[in-house]
Amino acid sequence: MSSNAHGRTSEETPLTIGEPKAPTHGERARTLVGAETTGTLATLNNDGFPHGSYVTFALDGSDPVFLVSKLAAHTQNLENDARASLLVHEVGATDPLSNGRVTLLGKCERLTDDASAREAFLAVHKQAEYYVDFSDFSFWRLAVQSVRYIGGYGRMSWLDLDGWRSAQCDPIAVHATGIIQHMNDDHADAMVCYARAFTRAIETDDVVMTGIDRYGFELSVAVNGGRRPARIAFEEPIATPTDARKTLVSLLGSARAQLEAKRTSSP
Amino acid sequence: MSSNAHGRTSEETPLTIGEPKAPTHGERARTLVGAETTGTLATLNNDGFPHGSYVTFALDGSDPVFLVSKLAAHTQNLENDARASLLVHEVGATDPLSNGRVTLLGKCERLTDDASAREAFLAVHKQAEYYVDFSDFSFWRLAVQSVRYIGGYGRMSWLDLDGWRSAQCDPIAVHATGIIQHMNDDHADAMVCYARAFTRAIETDDVVMTGIDRYGFELSVAVNGGRRPARIAFEEPIATPTDARKTLVSLLGSARAQLEAKRTSSP
Repeated sequence: MSSNAHGRTSEETPLTIGEPKAPTHGERARTLVGAETTGTLATLNNDGFPHGSYVTFALDGSDPVFLVSKLAAHTQNLENDARASLLVHEVGATDPLSNGRVTLLGKCERLTDDASAREAFLAVHKQAEYYVDFSDFSFWRLAVQSVRYIGGYGRMSWLDLDGWRSAQCDPIAVHATGIIQHMNDDHADAMVCYARAFTRAIETDDVVMTGIDRYGFELSVAVNGGRRPARIAFEEPIATPTDARKTLVSLLGSARAQLEAKRTSSP
Repeated sequence: MSSNAHGRTSEETPLTIGEPKAPTHGERARTLVGAETTGTLATLNNDGFPHGSYVTFALDGSDPVFLVSKLAAHTQNLENDARASLLVHEVGATDPLSNGRVTLLGKCERLTDDASAREAFLAVHKQAEYYVDFSDFSFWRLAVQSVRYIGGYGRMSWLDLDGWRSAQCDPIAVHATGIIQHMNDDHADAMVCYARAFTRAIETDDVVMTGIDRYGFELSVAVNGGRRPARIAFEEPIATPTDARKTLVSLLGSARAQLEAKRTSSP
């Protein structure tokens, strides 16, 4: 079930044409969790209160795993009641509630065979090699039963569990900041071409890239004294920064051809 | 009850002389929470699972207050069961578990008289003026019953509740980063004098400041091929950056005089 409550104003109605392919909420959630290494583990204390603890984690498949000391309050709580959740959020947005966040709910179990968890965890948390073999430390897994995704204002859903399990982290996510900065710093003219050719903003002259993923990219487009979002899809999903460069160059050729054809066909 | 489990190695034994006055855990926790504006609110869902939600908050006195929509999962949970906690953590340490964190546990109530909460919240969250008067938004308060403080590896305690309630945010905290950077960039020689005069490291020649608070400052001191921490207290608590400058200048005079007296009294 999705909700778009508190979508802001009609000023923000997208300029997008059609319904360009975009990541599902499952893919967005998986990408978000896969990019973070810390979160809040909520457990139940002896009085039945939900206790939030700051923890390090890694994804082992679609479930988060933890390396925790039996001395920790959350571990003692889990020994008594396995019910838990892990909240993971993005950082960096000026308005904090624009940051995406995901809550993974399920029961936690201490792992007797921890080979897979150990490998996944130490790949992300090198500093844990210092205490991984301390006798009071063990690996635990949260077996995800339900997933709450909030992508920012007005983009939220309870995810389909299979959708979470089968989703892959977006391979472009770790490169997105660099690509966006490069496009905005060096190719402002290209962005104007994309917007004029592939969105409703056929006369804009001020466009910035705000996002990119394997399926396409997002623009903030100046129109009528305001700014509105637009999305443009790639013909095929991309997987690498090289793919991104080739596809964006190719799209620019198409955009220029389309704008030129329109210009010469006008009276 | 405090624990120092997993303190690291004897290499890290402080070079401190005596027991210089330092912030209590209550003061450290209050300063930490007062410096942050977001946290994880843990509530109980219909199945009794603890659900973590990313929220904005402000301290109104010693209790956190929230502005939440009745559409939010956590608000629906609180309508059914008031038990909750707020986890707040620092960010920025290279090793995430070196970040301090505080869990405030208690029951949440929707405020009918929200004047004080509104003022405290909007002072910190200007962007909330946009939706503060939406009909589905209300202020809630978490009435703190217990407080868990973890200051990093091996510095943790359940706080005395009166200690939490009566503690004040350290007035130097918001200036600490700037003071530390200035001292390390421009006054490395002064730091060596402080360490030689006021710690056990009487021959060190490499010292950096790592922390400052109203009661004193912390150094990382090179000795015998390693680095060890040391703390030096001010004679009187300070309250402003100007106090810090005057006190550090005065301490440098004392340190130089002490080192000179020692030099001239040596054979």
